Amino acid sequence: MSSLGGSLDQNPPNADRHITEGGSDWLWAVTAIMGLSTLGMVLWQTTRPRGTRFFHNIALIILTTSTIAYFAMASDLGATPVRAEFSRGTTNTRQIWFVRYIQWFINFPLLLILLLFSTGLSVSDILTTAFFSWVVVICGLVGALVPSAYKWGFFVFGLLALFYIWSVLLGHGPRTTFNAGQTTRSGYVRGSGLVAFITLLYPIAWGCSEGGNVISPTGEMIWYGILDLILGPLFLYHFLFGLRNVDYGAFGFHSGKHTDGAYGGPDGGVGAGPNMKTAGGGATGARDVV
Amino acid sequence: MSSLGGSLDQNPPNADRHITEGGSDWLWAVTAIMGLSTLGMVLWQTTRPRGTRFFHNIALIILTTSTIAYFAMASDLGATPVRAEFSRGTTNTRQIWFVRYIQWFINFPLLLILLLFSTGLSVSDILTTAFFSWVVVICGLVGALVPSAYKWGFFVFGLLALFYIWSVLLGHGPRTTFNAGQTTRSGYVRGSGLVAFITLLYPIAWGCSEGGNVISPTGEMIWYGILDLILGPLFLYHFLFGLRNVDYGAFGFHSGKHTDGAYGGPDGGVGAGPNMKTAGGGATGARDVV
Amino acid sequence: MSSLGGSLDQNPPNADRHITEGGSDWLWAVTAIMGLSTLGMVLWQTTRPRGTRFFHNIALIILTTSTIAYFAMASDLGATPVRAEFSRGTTNTRQIWFVRYIQWFINFPLLLILLLFSTGLSVSDILTTAFFSWVVVICGLVGALVPSAYKWGFFVFGLLALFYIWSVLLGHGPRTTFNAGQTTRSGYVRGSGLVAFITLLYPIAWGCSEGGNVISPTGEMIWYGILDLILGPLFLYHFLFGLRNVDYGAFGFHSGKHTDGAYGGPDGGVGAGPNMKTAGGGATGARDVV
Repeated sequence: MSSLGGSLDQNPPNADRHITEGGSDWLWAVTAIMGLSTLGMVLWQTTRPRGTRFFHNIALIILTTSTIAYFAMASDLGATPVRAEFSRGTTNTRQIWFVRYIQWFINFPLLLILLLFSTGLSVSDILTTAFFSWVVVICGLVGALVPSAYKWGFFVFGLLALFYIWSVLLGHGPRTTFNAGQTTRSGYVRGSGLVAFITLLYPIAWGCSEGGNVISPTGEMIWYGILDLILGPLFLYHFLFGLRNVDYGAFGFHSGKHTDGAYGGPDGGVGAGPNMKTAGGGATGARDVV
Repeated sequence: MSSLGGSLDQNPPNADRHITEGGSDWLWAVTAIMGLSTLGMVLWQTTRPRGTRFFHNIALIILTTSTIAYFAMASDLGATPVRAEFSRGTTNTRQIWFVRYIQWFINFPLLLILLLFSTGLSVSDILTTAFFSWVVVICGLVGALVPSAYKWGFFVFGLLALFYIWSVLLGHGPRTTFNAGQTTRSGYVRGSGLVAFITLLYPIAWGCSEGGNVISPTGEMIWYGILDLILGPLFLYHFLFGLRNVDYGAFGFHSGKHTDGAYGGPDGGVGAGPNMKTAGGGATGARDVV
Repeated sequence: MSSLGGSLDQNPPNADRHITEGGSDWLWAVTAIMGLSTLGMVLWQTTRPRGTRFFHNIALIILTTSTIAYFAMASDLGATPVRAEFSRGTTNTRQIWFVRYIQWFINFPLLLILLLFSTGLSVSDILTTAFFSWVVVICGLVGALVPSAYKWGFFVFGLLALFYIWSVLLGHGPRTTFNAGQTTRSGYVRGSGLVAFITLLYPIAWGCSEGGNVISPTGEMIWYGILDLILGPLFLYHFLFGLRNVDYGAFGFHSGKHTDGAYGGPDGGVGAGPNMKTAGGGATGARDVV
């Protein structure tokens, strides 16, 4: 893939400490995996009956975003030079990859929504948790762009927001009733444990790269890239595979607007599609955000 | 209107290839049309009973955004100089109008939501389609800002996202059941055909202006301006006029929070407003995002 | 708190007319109040039964955003130099605090949603009003960044959007039926009056600072800071305190996904939590965005 490139020749970096050609090659490889996962998700989605694609829709959005973000990074586009707080020898400015934060701004809340919608938390609690994932991402971005020691202030705000997210993921989420039953519950517990653990490794990477300028931008790319692959294709395919036989109607939301006869229409819910149990007499007309 | 201006004198362009005073005059004319359409939509909206303004609300947001975006462009504000890949004679840098993409970022997904909410697609499928309209817009913006040949990579990503949108507009959408009946269906089919055709002309304009630097920024303004007028005021007024007699309650969503007695309240749906059929006994209490 | 600082030494301003060390001290004080209010809201939220935290969730998001924004401003981060239209003596460029507009972009629509969800307006009308609050904020930001007299064009657009918001707050809102009864109604009327009055003082501050360059950036910080404290901690705690005994289920939305037994599940609504009246037989299965 690097034959496409000479990315660094065509889009020359403008910071003293920047990624190498090898780093760009690694990024092309991640781009390829992300792209193939996206294509696979499009195909998988079409095999699901319409109106039961909520989780697949979210996974598709996450993978599409990652593909384009990694394409940009592999092309050596999407970074800005920032004066490093700690110069580490000859460094004056370091590449700060803002495109990475655009990716996370879209993907982190969606990942939490994907996970938490399988629990019994209220939509308002779920969206508040998603907001705190934005706090994490924005504080990481602003902290990375600030040259002085004040960057660590934003880092601390981001960590506090992460604690809020962990408390919801590991504390509140599992204590709710899982309408879709025990399979979903154990899938959720494993999933949320993984997400909590991996999101712990992100701030450590931040401290070593954008924060402390200890590892090189190429090392940063490998570290974040592996984490993005785990929380991206690996986690998503595993989680969705675990949900494949779950009674979709049991999640407690109805993909209300869908009207292929699979769901109760406005006349009171006369039809129920395959793999779909009708709720209660009156409740079938209920509609939700999904 | 150009008497307001000398826009180019007051806000001098900083790129070699920029819009002319004539281009600014054309933009003032478009601004005026957009502004009048916005005012008209505010008035039209007030004639609709509250709780049945979903489509008018969206149209109002689209027209307001266009008005302000065109005001900025007519003022020669909202562009940044970018080194052109193909210099075309003496050009070194070309005005790239990022404000245009901010406009589309808001308007394109809303246009799709407006159209697709008249079909029977699920909300999650509709929002995923809206996400892909963001992919189109963002890839267009990033591609326009990248000076090297890599801009065409983003262009290709944008085209792929457009194919997804077209497949939903022309493939999935018409195959669902239209709760609001045959009038809505034929209105949708004509509307989605128009939107699919016009959205095909946008990337061609991009290739000639931001991409290939073939036509001048003034030519770009005329091309995009006509397309924006067609998908803006023209399409919106036509589409909403087609919906004027449609039974609003039949769309399968209830503007749930509205409580002027026109809708079933939480006590089980005792009242039905004019032009509004109550759904089923239990279903009237159902509430939706609208 | 200013001992943390020497903010101006560590993050030196790059505009001719900028905040003083005293201004930074004031901003540290506001940051502290905002931070304590956020902590208090986290604690208060945990005392509410899950699924009834909609208004507290919104207040928490508003206060978190303000805390981080004021932390940035106190650190002398988040401003950009813009050539002033009126030089006022020796001024050439003035600090324009864009971080302030990021704060409002998040907080202003949420404040309106908080208020208007206690009325009987439809969700689509509420979100349209929230959109116009974005118009106000974005026009304020763009106007502040534009050096020429054209800034006042954006100012006028922002004022027009404010008129729309005031007409909804004071005109449409009170005329709807308040499901939650007279207490909510009078709370809303007082709240919306306050918000309408305070939002009138914001554009005056804008005209004196970002617009006319009459008062200094430090004066601007004090003016906006007091307004943000009134509409932030003061208003939110007062408004939520007024709602503390209101029957939450009466707002006409059900925090649908929540499944601790407090709400009717998909089997038709058999349980009703404390302080929660079941609606109608069928309607209990209804679900909403909250």
